[in-house]
Amino acid sequence: MSSALDEASLSQLFLSARTYSAWQEKPVPDELLVRIVDLMKLGPTSGNCEPVRIVFVRSAEAKARLKPFLSQGNSDKTMKAPVTAIIGYDLKFYELLPRLFPHTDARSWFTGKPEHIQETAFRNSSLQGAYLILAARAVGLDCGPMSGFDQAGVTAEFFAGTDIKANFLCNLGYGDASTLKPRLPRLSFDELAKIV
Amino acid sequence: MSSALDEASLSQLFLSARTYSAWQEKPVPDELLVRIVDLMKLGPTSGNCEPVRIVFVRSAEAKARLKPFLSQGNSDKTMKAPVTAIIGYDLKFYELLPRLFPHTDARSWFTGKPEHIQETAFRNSSLQGAYLILAARAVGLDCGPMSGFDQAGVTAEFFAGTDIKANFLCNLGYGDASTLKPRLPRLSFDELAKIV
Repeated sequence: MSSALDEASLSQLFLSARTYSAWQEKPVPDELLVRIVDLMKLGPTSGNCEPVRIVFVRSAEAKARLKPFLSQGNSDKTMKAPVTAIIGYDLKFYELLPRLFPHTDARSWFTGKPEHIQETAFRNSSLQGAYLILAARAVGLDCGPMSGFDQAGVTAEFFAGTDIKANFLCNLGYGDASTLKPRLPRLSFDELAKIV
Repeated sequence: MSSALDEASLSQLFLSARTYSAWQEKPVPDELLVRIVDLMKLGPTSGNCEPVRIVFVRSAEAKARLKPFLSQGNSDKTMKAPVTAIIGYDLKFYELLPRLFPHTDARSWFTGKPEHIQETAFRNSSLQGAYLILAARAVGLDCGPMSGFDQAGVTAEFFAGTDIKANFLCNLGYGDASTLKPRLPRLSFDELAKIV
């Protein structure tokens, strides 16, 4: 039976983890990106549907393709981040269900149901994006997730010719803690939850 | 600077963590539910919007209210779980932004924009639901998340008189590993991601 992780691990994942906008001059090797995807993909999705698709934007050329679609407040920090992950979702995810969920005809749950496809892909790619954030923290990286960008523009630029849509962005690297401001307030337990 | 968590911690969070459908006869104390919410709420949301709202269904009376809305395959395991979390999202989340994101008029980003409100609440409550899953694992609990239920029915039964909508469910407890089947397949790195 598992017990709680030690305090240092809880701190790294949650308690002292922060959203970063400034980055140390320290690269993120490809092997670490593979590692966080290999952790992320083990997290649960409904019917094992795994709709997330990710582009890790690292080269100067690829960053330049991304820049026109960023909100003003997200542009500079994203250009300076070692890597920016585009978290997308594939609206054709259900075509893979005969392989991913082989013991029943799960593809038929979605065929001809575009609203159910969209909702399932968006929910589960968001879950998988959150797993990626926590996997990145778990291997020692820092994150800067963002929703402020032109989704249709990023979709057209990075996912042309596919059924993949952009969901959100997440800068990845080793954060510069000297630039952090105090953490924003959080709701109380009683505002967030109840036990019945 | 952080390094990677040790292998036992990565195992507990991802590598050997599984979705459970059967549960040990071991209760989940209220203090542990408060603990996982206190960890979850530190995870990032866009503009610190924190739209998630959670009902932890524990009593026999509350479980009986939930039962009619569960799909057949999710009913028995949910009735037997120590706790079932209803992960919801509040479409009025933006009314709290003057407190949660006080340095600008963030409420005006949403006023009169129902599609942007819905998308933001759904994306961020899904992220927060994933943080809850990993926070639960981090304190030694096991999870059984589910999308197979009548969302409108659960919304009407548990969130009547509010602007909160049900997103997904997650059973919580100490899993019975003797019932686990082999893990379902996952997509490869090259199917999920690319580096550009």
